[in-house]
Amino acid sequence: MSASSGRHFLQIPGPTNVPDRVLRALAQPTIDHRGPDFAELALDVLRRVEPVFGTSGPVVIYPSSGTGAWEAALVNTLSPGDRVLAFETGHFATLWRDMAEGLGLVVDFVPGDWRHGVDPAVVAERLAADEQHRIAAVMVVHNETSTGVTSRVPEIRAAIDEAGHPALLLVDTISSLGSIDYRHDEWGVDVTVSCSQKGLMLPPGLGFNAISAKALAAAERARLPKSYWNWAPFLEANERGFYPYTPPTNLLYGLREALSLLESEGLPAVFARHDRHAAATRAAVRGWGLEVLCADEREHSSSLTAVLLPEEHDANKVRQIILDRFDMSLGAGLGKLTGRVFRIGHLGDLNDLTLAGTLAGVQMGLELAGVPVDPSGLRAALDVLRG
Amino acid sequence: MSASSGRHFLQIPGPTNVPDRVLRALAQPTIDHRGPDFAELALDVLRRVEPVFGTSGPVVIYPSSGTGAWEAALVNTLSPGDRVLAFETGHFATLWRDMAEGLGLVVDFVPGDWRHGVDPAVVAERLAADEQHRIAAVMVVHNETSTGVTSRVPEIRAAIDEAGHPALLLVDTISSLGSIDYRHDEWGVDVTVSCSQKGLMLPPGLGFNAISAKALAAAERARLPKSYWNWAPFLEANERGFYPYTPPTNLLYGLREALSLLESEGLPAVFARHDRHAAATRAAVRGWGLEVLCADEREHSSSLTAVLLPEEHDANKVRQIILDRFDMSLGAGLGKLTGRVFRIGHLGDLNDLTLAGTLAGVQMGLELAGVPVDPSGLRAALDVLRG
Amino acid sequence: MSASSGRHFLQIPGPTNVPDRVLRALAQPTIDHRGPDFAELALDVLRRVEPVFGTSGPVVIYPSSGTGAWEAALVNTLSPGDRVLAFETGHFATLWRDMAEGLGLVVDFVPGDWRHGVDPAVVAERLAADEQHRIAAVMVVHNETSTGVTSRVPEIRAAIDEAGHPALLLVDTISSLGSIDYRHDEWGVDVTVSCSQKGLMLPPGLGFNAISAKALAAAERARLPKSYWNWAPFLEANERGFYPYTPPTNLLYGLREALSLLESEGLPAVFARHDRHAAATRAAVRGWGLEVLCADEREHSSSLTAVLLPEEHDANKVRQIILDRFDMSLGAGLGKLTGRVFRIGHLGDLNDLTLAGTLAGVQMGLELAGVPVDPSGLRAALDVLRG
Amino acid sequence: MSASSGRHFLQIPGPTNVPDRVLRALAQPTIDHRGPDFAELALDVLRRVEPVFGTSGPVVIYPSSGTGAWEAALVNTLSPGDRVLAFETGHFATLWRDMAEGLGLVVDFVPGDWRHGVDPAVVAERLAADEQHRIAAVMVVHNETSTGVTSRVPEIRAAIDEAGHPALLLVDTISSLGSIDYRHDEWGVDVTVSCSQKGLMLPPGLGFNAISAKALAAAERARLPKSYWNWAPFLEANERGFYPYTPPTNLLYGLREALSLLESEGLPAVFARHDRHAAATRAAVRGWGLEVLCADEREHSSSLTAVLLPEEHDANKVRQIILDRFDMSLGAGLGKLTGRVFRIGHLGDLNDLTLAGTLAGVQMGLELAGVPVDPSGLRAALDVLRG
Repeated sequence: MSASSGRHFLQIPGPTNVPDRVLRALAQPTIDHRGPDFAELALDVLRRVEPVFGTSGPVVIYPSSGTGAWEAALVNTLSPGDRVLAFETGHFATLWRDMAEGLGLVVDFVPGDWRHGVDPAVVAERLAADEQHRIAAVMVVHNETSTGVTSRVPEIRAAIDEAGHPALLLVDTISSLGSIDYRHDEWGVDVTVSCSQKGLMLPPGLGFNAISAKALAAAERARLPKSYWNWAPFLEANERGFYPYTPPTNLLYGLREALSLLESEGLPAVFARHDRHAAATRAAVRGWGLEVLCADEREHSSSLTAVLLPEEHDANKVRQIILDRFDMSLGAGLGKLTGRVFRIGHLGDLNDLTLAGTLAGVQMGLELAGVPVDPSGLRAALDVLRG
Repeated sequence: MSASSGRHFLQIPGPTNVPDRVLRALAQPTIDHRGPDFAELALDVLRRVEPVFGTSGPVVIYPSSGTGAWEAALVNTLSPGDRVLAFETGHFATLWRDMAEGLGLVVDFVPGDWRHGVDPAVVAERLAADEQHRIAAVMVVHNETSTGVTSRVPEIRAAIDEAGHPALLLVDTISSLGSIDYRHDEWGVDVTVSCSQKGLMLPPGLGFNAISAKALAAAERARLPKSYWNWAPFLEANERGFYPYTPPTNLLYGLREALSLLESEGLPAVFARHDRHAAATRAAVRGWGLEVLCADEREHSSSLTAVLLPEEHDANKVRQIILDRFDMSLGAGLGKLTGRVFRIGHLGDLNDLTLAGTLAGVQMGLELAGVPVDPSGLRAALDVLRG
Repeated sequence: MSASSGRHFLQIPGPTNVPDRVLRALAQPTIDHRGPDFAELALDVLRRVEPVFGTSGPVVIYPSSGTGAWEAALVNTLSPGDRVLAFETGHFATLWRDMAEGLGLVVDFVPGDWRHGVDPAVVAERLAADEQHRIAAVMVVHNETSTGVTSRVPEIRAAIDEAGHPALLLVDTISSLGSIDYRHDEWGVDVTVSCSQKGLMLPPGLGFNAISAKALAAAERARLPKSYWNWAPFLEANERGFYPYTPPTNLLYGLREALSLLESEGLPAVFARHDRHAAATRAAVRGWGLEVLCADEREHSSSLTAVLLPEEHDANKVRQIILDRFDMSLGAGLGKLTGRVFRIGHLGDLNDLTLAGTLAGVQMGLELAGVPVDPSGLRAALDVLRG
Repeated sequence: MSASSGRHFLQIPGPTNVPDRVLRALAQPTIDHRGPDFAELALDVLRRVEPVFGTSGPVVIYPSSGTGAWEAALVNTLSPGDRVLAFETGHFATLWRDMAEGLGLVVDFVPGDWRHGVDPAVVAERLAADEQHRIAAVMVVHNETSTGVTSRVPEIRAAIDEAGHPALLLVDTISSLGSIDYRHDEWGVDVTVSCSQKGLMLPPGLGFNAISAKALAAAERARLPKSYWNWAPFLEANERGFYPYTPPTNLLYGLREALSLLESEGLPAVFARHDRHAAATRAAVRGWGLEVLCADEREHSSSLTAVLLPEEHDANKVRQIILDRFDMSLGAGLGKLTGRVFRIGHLGDLNDLTLAGTLAGVQMGLELAGVPVDPSGLRAALDVLRG
């Protein structure tokens, strides 16, 4: 246990800071998962989580990490040998591709530079070229947690429609849900994948699939083997507020409380807050004279910002100094960005002064690490926050 | 939220009562899962959980229910079309069989009457008959949560050895681990499956696989598709205290605290306590003039007792009365035992007076339901408890 | 930290078992005691605590034990040398007398046998004899925590009225408030003294004074020195939801939650529950062949029962055995009852099965201590509980 | 409940931010205050709190606010009509004077300008003039919470000694204990008064008196009436780990945890941290072009800083803007400083980034309120923090 005073600054792009109220909710006594109180809890959260996905359809909540929810999206809708279209937007898109291949799918993986989102024009082109409709699904990471780039799902949807292609649209919202505007139904997404430990402000341990009618129909035909991830027994048991196996009761307590917080603030206000914090963070980065990794103004993430360092500086050294001196965790560069970037998480349960403290810590850490920065960066961020 | 006063009596055979200390531990702030504090936590619990399984080998801890750990045991060690030997000891053995078949395994399912455990003689006989060693694994539920019958794993092991058969031994300890004596290494078990919400006194959300060297070798050859459940990336990441995907941090906090409780009481004392509580419960049941479902004195479960009612009485009606009048949850009869039995959980964080209150509630509930019982049953239990 | 499993049985007559919800409420972050959120909290609890006292007048809540609230009742209403009438109903009445004398009051202390409450006839007689109205106040302990005897306040009120005497009526409800029917306004009580750790189901740390208009008028003239306990600055600051000095914020969080629990169950149901549990406890005691200390059927306490042992047995030895073997705390005999009685608390957050477990533990402990008891005692209690 | 996201910034000079670990400790179940576990708790905290006061003598811990501990210091050592010497260093010194007068003491109150601490030369002069030794005690507020001025107790002690005067030295350390170096024994203090909700990082509800041998001797002769505050029964009961009345069990749980935190960081490191945070805060204030209220460089408080605004600005308006826009509480100007100053608390559980966020919020709030400030103030603070 560390001897440091005060609260740790957890400014990675998830797990995010869990609100005190949610932590206390987790500590409620576990109850009978076959009894009436549990059914009431489950029905309540299943109903109230739908608007967060922007859907009126079913949402399955697994006792799992988000990785499990990735797998669930694939095994419920696809069959061995199915072709899917995916995009190298960053580390997590690559991992999802690896999983798809490991499960026996054939992945068309469009290369990328890890600084841009999915290009809707490429989607249109690839689908148009697929005249025999052999592509069964398009896999998109909405917000690349490794890069801070947000793909434009409505434009991707439009591209699919334009091509008149029947492929399913599978979207990973792991680091966007509850932080960045997202609309499962309106955008015609078929499976939305998410998890608990980011915008939902919970500890890790819940995986989510929001499911369209088209995805449900696909599930009837899908032949990838599945047991734990099988939607069918969930949808049946959930009707009465139960689970096909022992449910993650205490995390559902936390979810109920977290949903109350989101409802109390209101989703539009939540999204506006994230937009504002992201803008302030970019103002700081640019004020310091550093580069934001995301290369397209239309694709800046509102939940995290990846900061590119000059080549001669090691981002992990900066992170270590900041952890040691200021008790703050930042996200590392992942995969081919290792050592090149660090990532500032500004999603979940956060306010202006915590962001100000965060950016002050980054500024001091950069200075201590010998990275040349203009200290007016912090002030530029405050100008945004002050409004 | 119920208006009733006092603490709910959660006397189902799991989830069990989570100790206050563990509940508070769950409420610690979530930390960076790639930072040094997490690594320290993970290495600590991975090391300290081994003795609970009676192993010095690796234990994988999944963010999942126990059902996931069932699946993990199968997909990591077996290939499509593999033959496995399983036994109809009750509802959960049947579900595990169903899963195995769903995953593409061929199951030899030895029928049973749900009142006995696995018969070691049948194991010996079946394996001896399998001269070509086509049976790849023997699947055993150590403690059948649906019946309160504990199979004799050492004798099963001896039967396998006697037959000179190379089959893997896969054992489900979901409702026995941390409650009933169990020895993964000594008994030559290859994969031990367990979960958090029973003897480990945690909320649901963690699945466990303890893995023998033989199972690790089998995993090299196993061809069932797997991603989330794949041992290999776990074993590699766990070496340094990390996870292949986002770990269930707050449940690991709880696990650390629960392990401290088990260590503080000492496993032999924990097992003796469960034995004593089970004996007291059986004394009550027999004192009431009712029948314990388990039909073999060598196989009584120390973690739960299933009580068989006279045919003309509905066990669910008894349970409902007890829930309504005494705020106590008991386990229902499952599968073909629905309405015929109710189950008293006496595992996990429990003491003599809570058991006395439990049995008093059962006695009063039976009386209120019009089941003819001899009220000296409770007193017989107290005679056991008083010693 | 004890190695014992399960939840400790805290069956002393206070501090009582604090409900989980209240414990979690205590753990909310402390806030600015001069800010709007605090004012809202304070106004809320001050308003909602009134019905628990049966008053529509002011209630002062001190950061103190109940002993402080005793002192507050005296120093706010009386002057040095004032004469008060008090009654030796037990240990706590004697301590309150000692305090009054220590503060410079002259106490007429009517002797008692510690098995009866205040005799209204003696009140009438003493006041009638005080023709010059030199007695400034009558001090009554509503429920003697040391004996389990409840004095009949309405009859005492009637006796005062009958005598036409202007004395103030000061009543200690420390172990009755929120457990036993009590009506400050209707019964014409002038100061009601109470505290947090009994029927209010909170940890110790709050002292209460409910104050009549007559007491407020008396306070104008009272000349005992006072600072911390002075009502006047409280009444002024409380108007706007503030405190004259730093308030006990976290205990007020707990109080808010505890009031919600009482409101949810409803005070009449709360009182009926206590009456029923007390009846069951007396049935057990008598069934064992032992004697309840309280000697008047009209005065049995519904919040605790003192059990008188045969002379040759040491009640403290029984308590020690019960603590060691069954992890249950019972109340000791106090003052001249040391070793002669033990006290079973059955107030606060309690249900039938916890009471059954409690009485089972007492029965087993008596047997282990060699006190001859008829084991049908427990069954007699269950007959009451089952109804 | 506010809809705002993130953690409230509680930067008043107490109550301070209670660490999560302490909040969870508060939520432990209340235990029997006459049992062995309580005795162990009480003996542990009584022993471990001594070094925080810098004493090896007794410390009494009351269930009370700090105001109660003020009263205790007076009533245990003094008699009606006794003369005491006190100093108008600010609002709280004035309130303590008022209390002393209310209790019947005669106070020589040396006027002050609320920008300086106690002048040791004046102490020397007044005591030298008191040839008949009629002054029974010198009352000093170590750290004036209303002004951010720390009096130099060692020099005051030297002044008393120089005068050869037998007066007791009574010191209020309410907002310095555990934050600013303090040594009860070494500095020859007779009664040190403190409370829980500042440097001890607890909720309000505990009052403390550390007591010298000379004070104990004075207590033998002191004739102010006392009951609740009487040291004698405390010192006797505390010997065995008990209390003369019901103790504040859950706050003592919190105290135990808070003492662990202080021990883990180490008192010298704790004091150095507070000094550094105070220096950073003053750097910000001066950088903004504003004035620190404390007028003597030797007397700057390390636990809070009072900021004087230009006459035409209302400090309460600034505070309101900061509360509304940035969810941060600051301390108001008290008494004659109302509207003229606001106070930044930087004591207790605090780290560099929270202080940076705090100062960023103050800077933005001043700007929004139209107070002319130089925005390089924050940067000056970061220069101090970065080192």
